[in-house]
Amino acid sequence: MTAPTPSTSASHGYISDKHRYLARLKRIEGQARGIHRMVEEDTYCIDILTQISAITSALNNVALGLLDDHLKHCVVGAAQDGGAEAEEKIKEASDAIARLVRK
Amino acid sequence: MTAPTPSTSASHGYISDKHRYLARLKRIEGQARGIHRMVEEDTYCIDILTQISAITSALNNVALGLLDDHLKHCVVGAAQDGGAEAEEKIKEASDAIARLVRK
Amino acid sequence: MTAPTPSTSASHGYISDKHRYLARLKRIEGQARGIHRMVEEDTYCIDILTQISAITSALNNVALGLLDDHLKHCVVGAAQDGGAEAEEKIKEASDAIARLVRK
Amino acid sequence: MTAPTPSTSASHGYISDKHRYLARLKRIEGQARGIHRMVEEDTYCIDILTQISAITSALNNVALGLLDDHLKHCVVGAAQDGGAEAEEKIKEASDAIARLVRK
Repeated sequence: MTAPTPSTSASHGYISDKHRYLARLKRIEGQARGIHRMVEEDTYCIDILTQISAITSALNNVALGLLDDHLKHCVVGAAQDGGAEAEEKIKEASDAIARLVRK
Repeated sequence: MTAPTPSTSASHGYISDKHRYLARLKRIEGQARGIHRMVEEDTYCIDILTQISAITSALNNVALGLLDDHLKHCVVGAAQDGGAEAEEKIKEASDAIARLVRK
Repeated sequence: MTAPTPSTSASHGYISDKHRYLARLKRIEGQARGIHRMVEEDTYCIDILTQISAITSALNNVALGLLDDHLKHCVVGAAQDGGAEAEEKIKEASDAIARLVRK
Repeated sequence: MTAPTPSTSASHGYISDKHRYLARLKRIEGQARGIHRMVEEDTYCIDILTQISAITSALNNVALGLLDDHLKHCVVGAAQDGGAEAEEKIKEASDAIARLVRK
């Protein structure tokens, strides 16, 4: 499941409910396009900012969901295998969390 | 100055360097599409998170730029006109800032 | 350094409801002391993190309140005086907002 | 409160380099006291905001460090034990991360 088998692109198929993520990201893409249009049409600045906050929020939620899946599958799996692999996975996860928190 | 077409929807033409914003938003839209593709292709979770942090950062920068333009033009203008209008603009701006900070 | 008029400490007396801010900051100081004690006593990590989120939230709220006061008084005042002073105040405020958003 | 084994305060003794955390938290407590004093003395608002950003940043760093320790010890430990305990630990950690990201 989590083993990094190189031959297939589906090697990280740990994402639960992938269709739901894809639908959310499709919506985020549409929101990004909407913000572009708002700037183009000189929409009132505060309304653009509201939209940017909404899309940032949606992206954070996707990130938190993916991170939870990652901890549940990759990190737990590596911990069970033990050794340096587990340590490396934790370091990677901690660095990703820091980037999300500090942004 | 920045108002492109005077007769139309450009009533809020306070955005300085609109072309630069549009280019940045085009790039953000592409990044959003890229994240969708990464999930679809089961890209390694940590790499998706890195991309989400990058797009969130880019969106924050756009928001901070628009807010600066807004303070420079709308808020200063309203302050010079004085009265309830200025107060309302400040309230609006403060609320938008709170949404960006708390996200 | 920052106090321009040395004769009175109240030169920036624009903070509305100062007593309320002082009470909130007193509480924040107590929360910081509490976190120190929690680490000392090896409190469960997740409970410490919850406390850190609470104090960060409280600090953000103080910052957003002060910023709102600042926009209402200093920035509006400078805008009414006009000129380079207004521009500088906006730049200062935008930089402070960026630090709060990016943290 | 949350410490399950009452007889020793070191029941969650997973915090690496505890003395360093305590020193950092002592400094944060001093910074909080400093912000209180700044408001009391009507220090220029922007300078207070700068201090608040500094303390928020310092708190985030403490939180990220504690979280990393927590993942390394509690979560890895629970994963190796397996079962519902691991799942619960991950859920707890994910919730704590969400609070830090959303703040």
